Amino acid sequence: MNFNINKSNTEIREQLQHKIDLKTKPIGSLGVLEKLAVKIGCIQNTLTPELKQPTIMVFAADHGIALDGVSPYPQEVTWQMVANFINGGAAINVFSRQNGIDIKIVDAGVNYDFDKNTDVINAKVDYGTKSYLNGAAMTADQFEIALKRGADLCDKVHREGCNIIGFGEMGIANTSSAAILLHLLGNVDLKECVGRGTGWDDEGLKKKYETLATAVLNYKGDNKVESILAHFGGFEIIMILGAMLKAAELKMVIMVDGFIISSALLAASKIDPNMLDYCIFTHKSNENGHQFMLKHLNAEPILDLGMRLGEGTGAAVAYPIIESAVNFLNQMASFEDAGVSNSDKIVEA
Amino acid sequence: MNFNINKSNTEIREQLQHKIDLKTKPIGSLGVLEKLAVKIGCIQNTLTPELKQPTIMVFAADHGIALDGVSPYPQEVTWQMVANFINGGAAINVFSRQNGIDIKIVDAGVNYDFDKNTDVINAKVDYGTKSYLNGAAMTADQFEIALKRGADLCDKVHREGCNIIGFGEMGIANTSSAAILLHLLGNVDLKECVGRGTGWDDEGLKKKYETLATAVLNYKGDNKVESILAHFGGFEIIMILGAMLKAAELKMVIMVDGFIISSALLAASKIDPNMLDYCIFTHKSNENGHQFMLKHLNAEPILDLGMRLGEGTGAAVAYPIIESAVNFLNQMASFEDAGVSNSDKIVEA
Repeated sequence: MNFNINKSNTEIREQLQHKIDLKTKPIGSLGVLEKLAVKIGCIQNTLTPELKQPTIMVFAADHGIALDGVSPYPQEVTWQMVANFINGGAAINVFSRQNGIDIKIVDAGVNYDFDKNTDVINAKVDYGTKSYLNGAAMTADQFEIALKRGADLCDKVHREGCNIIGFGEMGIANTSSAAILLHLLGNVDLKECVGRGTGWDDEGLKKKYETLATAVLNYKGDNKVESILAHFGGFEIIMILGAMLKAAELKMVIMVDGFIISSALLAASKIDPNMLDYCIFTHKSNENGHQFMLKHLNAEPILDLGMRLGEGTGAAVAYPIIESAVNFLNQMASFEDAGVSNSDKIVEA
Repeated sequence: MNFNINKSNTEIREQLQHKIDLKTKPIGSLGVLEKLAVKIGCIQNTLTPELKQPTIMVFAADHGIALDGVSPYPQEVTWQMVANFINGGAAINVFSRQNGIDIKIVDAGVNYDFDKNTDVINAKVDYGTKSYLNGAAMTADQFEIALKRGADLCDKVHREGCNIIGFGEMGIANTSSAAILLHLLGNVDLKECVGRGTGWDDEGLKKKYETLATAVLNYKGDNKVESILAHFGGFEIIMILGAMLKAAELKMVIMVDGFIISSALLAASKIDPNMLDYCIFTHKSNENGHQFMLKHLNAEPILDLGMRLGEGTGAAVAYPIIESAVNFLNQMASFEDAGVSNSDKIVEA
């Protein structure tokens, strides 16, 4: 599946900055909010950008590698947490409700049959991936199916009116896939990529590292992004990749969450670097590998709150700040509007 | 005027942390949000804290020192910006409106007569302070009046139902007062305390430093906090000091904004260190001295967005994150509620 991603329109950048500089405030004094306003204006190609129907899609899937002891939680936690999302009791529900964000829960490949009457969107590719300790997590066909389903789901919310989207994930053992993707696609030492995930002690962390090092050694495929992704999975990561690439094609604003989501973005940026023009990095996760991911992507995240929960919670918590950026651009008075004296002696500090 | 400030209740701390640890998330994975939830729970002495009628009081006043060339903006900008606040066109209006925060605009001592039919709260002590280049900015009586008026205004919003308050300021040249307070109360080299304020170029910055160094040399008063404050002003800073001390006495949550507000808090903490139990540091300002202020107060601010606008904008932008802290504590399901399997192998990473 191919995506046609153009760079965002930077011709309007100067006009946006000029509009910002006439606002009743010292030059440059809104810092990151000014950068965000310019970025969103360029994406939407307008001096009056709008954020419509903010949505976070949470993709859930199981990972065969979980049975090889890379997570302290049992695999069943994946479907149990999906049920928690549906019942509105998880962190992502709380923060999305607070901030007026619509959430969609997608079964990308959970090892469980959800009741058809619940709000889970059924995009299941399989009942979890295979373990990639000795072979591929999924087939090339499954990879293509997952990629397309992600893209189609993003396309659907866009047609329904959404122009800003974030992604979340749930999948016991998915920090392992993300760690390997960072290692192979970002050329970062595997030791730095493997973190405590949901909360390993030292012994568990060591075992996780050893298992993943073996998995990487056993990989005999080529260096193509797609090959690596199909081998190490998971279904939710591939679906997020497809959704992200589609979101950039559709010129949506993309809110990038933490470690897992950034691993999908890392892959997306290797497929098409124009992708990054549409991305706002919402937070720096406390999962060790995320700092390397951000460095590799040359990203400056909005928040650094020591969070490492996943689910898209970083994006949900940061959303009001993105709103603030758009709001000041649209709503603040200029010096002229407000009859406030300006100064010609000022510089950008 | 004296304030009776007790420490917040730390006996409930363990119960709060226990409640947090049972939520459906890895231990510690909400980082700073968990710390905020515990802090607010201790302040309100409850496992189910609530944020009621969030309010930002913006205190405006003029400074005689402005006429000695310490700011690139003319003094009239103070009243013009107050008019902008009243008309809803300033940054603090935009962010407060977005986040459901009530704002109160207080004339603490602006060199202008506002129309009595506007929403400006008249607490004017005088038409601006005197320059402190060669003498005191205000009399001891004026200091007491300002302190009491600030405390009374805070008491009033508390009686009206507010339990979380932030402070903003407007006053051309007030970074100069804040710089001297940091220098004298925080023992920081004056060079580090003096910043570009609203946006000085290098020459202007040099002149500002020299003027303030002379003012400090000319100070012949004692080392009492009150004496220093009365000498270097301004009326808005003293009124914020009074309001802050009263807020702590009333066990309100205090949202601390940037450089100017932190200078008032620095003074408040010297008067009564218990004060700090009630404070949430909302952001790190880009004004140079603020980092030293935060270090002196041992503070870890929520946001670091390179903002340096004043008006209370840091508090207004950070407020939704404080809400998120309270909301997850009250609304997230526990492992038991949600029927999610927990692990006994986890550690706080």
